Amino acid sequence: MMKEAPLAPELAVTSWFNTQKPLTLAGLRGRPVLIHAFQMLCPGCVIHGTPQAQKAHMMFRDSDLQVIGLHTVFEHHDAMNARALEAYIHEFRVTMPIAVDQPGDGTPTPVTMRRLGLRGTPSSVLIGRDGRIRHHGFGQEDDMAVGALIAAAIAEKPFTPALATDSADADTCTDTFCPAP
Amino acid sequence: MMKEAPLAPELAVTSWFNTQKPLTLAGLRGRPVLIHAFQMLCPGCVIHGTPQAQKAHMMFRDSDLQVIGLHTVFEHHDAMNARALEAYIHEFRVTMPIAVDQPGDGTPTPVTMRRLGLRGTPSSVLIGRDGRIRHHGFGQEDDMAVGALIAAAIAEKPFTPALATDSADADTCTDTFCPAP
Amino acid sequence: MMKEAPLAPELAVTSWFNTQKPLTLAGLRGRPVLIHAFQMLCPGCVIHGTPQAQKAHMMFRDSDLQVIGLHTVFEHHDAMNARALEAYIHEFRVTMPIAVDQPGDGTPTPVTMRRLGLRGTPSSVLIGRDGRIRHHGFGQEDDMAVGALIAAAIAEKPFTPALATDSADADTCTDTFCPAP
Amino acid sequence: MMKEAPLAPELAVTSWFNTQKPLTLAGLRGRPVLIHAFQMLCPGCVIHGTPQAQKAHMMFRDSDLQVIGLHTVFEHHDAMNARALEAYIHEFRVTMPIAVDQPGDGTPTPVTMRRLGLRGTPSSVLIGRDGRIRHHGFGQEDDMAVGALIAAAIAEKPFTPALATDSADADTCTDTFCPAP
Repeated sequence: MMKEAPLAPELAVTSWFNTQKPLTLAGLRGRPVLIHAFQMLCPGCVIHGTPQAQKAHMMFRDSDLQVIGLHTVFEHHDAMNARALEAYIHEFRVTMPIAVDQPGDGTPTPVTMRRLGLRGTPSSVLIGRDGRIRHHGFGQEDDMAVGALIAAAIAEKPFTPALATDSADADTCTDTFCPAP
Repeated sequence: MMKEAPLAPELAVTSWFNTQKPLTLAGLRGRPVLIHAFQMLCPGCVIHGTPQAQKAHMMFRDSDLQVIGLHTVFEHHDAMNARALEAYIHEFRVTMPIAVDQPGDGTPTPVTMRRLGLRGTPSSVLIGRDGRIRHHGFGQEDDMAVGALIAAAIAEKPFTPALATDSADADTCTDTFCPAP
Repeated sequence: MMKEAPLAPELAVTSWFNTQKPLTLAGLRGRPVLIHAFQMLCPGCVIHGTPQAQKAHMMFRDSDLQVIGLHTVFEHHDAMNARALEAYIHEFRVTMPIAVDQPGDGTPTPVTMRRLGLRGTPSSVLIGRDGRIRHHGFGQEDDMAVGALIAAAIAEKPFTPALATDSADADTCTDTFCPAP
Repeated sequence: MMKEAPLAPELAVTSWFNTQKPLTLAGLRGRPVLIHAFQMLCPGCVIHGTPQAQKAHMMFRDSDLQVIGLHTVFEHHDAMNARALEAYIHEFRVTMPIAVDQPGDGTPTPVTMRRLGLRGTPSSVLIGRDGRIRHHGFGQEDDMAVGALIAAAIAEKPFTPALATDSADADTCTDTFCPAP
């Protein structure tokens, strides 16, 4: 079943907040990633979705989960510009990395939002260690369910077989093989 | 006690939303008025204060209470401009009249906010039928208390009877009578 | 309209908590009274209604409002006995006066509940200074509305002036006067 | 680290609700178990803890998690008897299995509560597939954290190698062995 899940498309981002260097899904392969798509003037985001994503960012900070807020503006583009977003992030004390989705070409929907096939905001996309989409949510999601989905994604073994990784470090025979010098 | 309450200073407003003509406290004299001072990027406003004022606007719509939202921007002025406010009002379905407080001259604090002596946002100012301030709140206020304060202001007799009461204290002639020595 | 509101029937109570002497509506005439009918094992009471009534008890403690909790057990009578109620009051820190409604004779519905015509629990009955029912609520009620209803009842003039009004309608002698033909 | 976690002591139960046969931790070995210790007149249980455990019971119903409500009465024993608990379970629509903790001998604290070393109610004890305690919570716990803890316990591999268990049931040769008749 998981093999059939689609690979998450790469992010298309024009600017970042709360991170010193840009993040890419390719660079995060091997780690679970939670993308929270929002708009700063979307009530369901401001009141529920974004605080929930920020809570996950804090709660799983000792794991290798990466939470990314994705500002997917598809309406009121002039009101929700980068300057306004910066003020929003500051005032609402959002500390997770925030990516500004790349504006669409001839369409109000931004690029990553379209690639991910999001229906609106807030949306959440949980990506497994293998880069495939584990969960796709739209609207208000229950905290307990979100916590469970994230923990299940963290618990998954890395997509590269651990055995192959181990073999690279082995310098003596193991139960199953002997490395050449 | 009420006699000592200060008269509410007049509003200084640059533009209005959700009303066909500008409102003034002078024109509303005789009616109770609830002013809800907010900023569209103030978390305590967005999450609690403004929905509460909007609820009062709906709940008391059959009374003569007038609820006014006052956008008192004192920080992030460029992010909270009139265009952004319009999008906010639309997205959050705010239907009470909204006044944009007049920018300060050489100070980030706008004019009405300064006149009212507000400490920040959200603030609420409840004005009685006599134009005097009945209640001044800052921060999160309890719904039950707000409902009680408003209903008490509505229940007050129109301010005109107060003149007769004043006469008891008068020691010189007024327009309508002369007290005996 | 208020003249047509029914007089609240008297309470029928078997025991009291949180008050040194029993209360009666007759003895409270002239004061507004809020009756909160509940059962200690009614979820809507425990989670919302009773905390709301307790909040009103505290919030209006400097007014002459009297809040009364009325334990109207109409099911699970053996589980919600006086001893269990005492433990509930203690554990949930209820401090408003609590009356135990008198058990029905041959019916599970207790006497005061039947007199008041309550549909279930939680129910609230707000009684004006004149002893007449101002408001009758069933189920979850909004805090702001409850605050407004109570404040409006408090703001009403004492019931005595109503006597003069009544006299205008009287066509036979009463205890205190005889109308002229 | 997990090896050092203590084995959960067995339940001591006088009666059960919502299950046709009694449950034991021994019988549940190999499955994760969430024990929610509560009292029906404990406000923090009624308002938050028990609804949270019930939510987990429903949310993870397709997993092999077993949620057990444990009624650990350590005060007001006469008010929180089995009959009252039955009414509570019915009225609050609790459907998870509920165990009544065995009363203490000469102490108000019941047996399982003492064995588990619980500090009060609500308490939660999450037991891994190996029968060892993974998490011990007291008071209000965050839904997202609870969801994550449960999912992590579900994700753990069973402690008895599945292969060995299978072999006991096999009656023909498999890839790795042939059972004797």
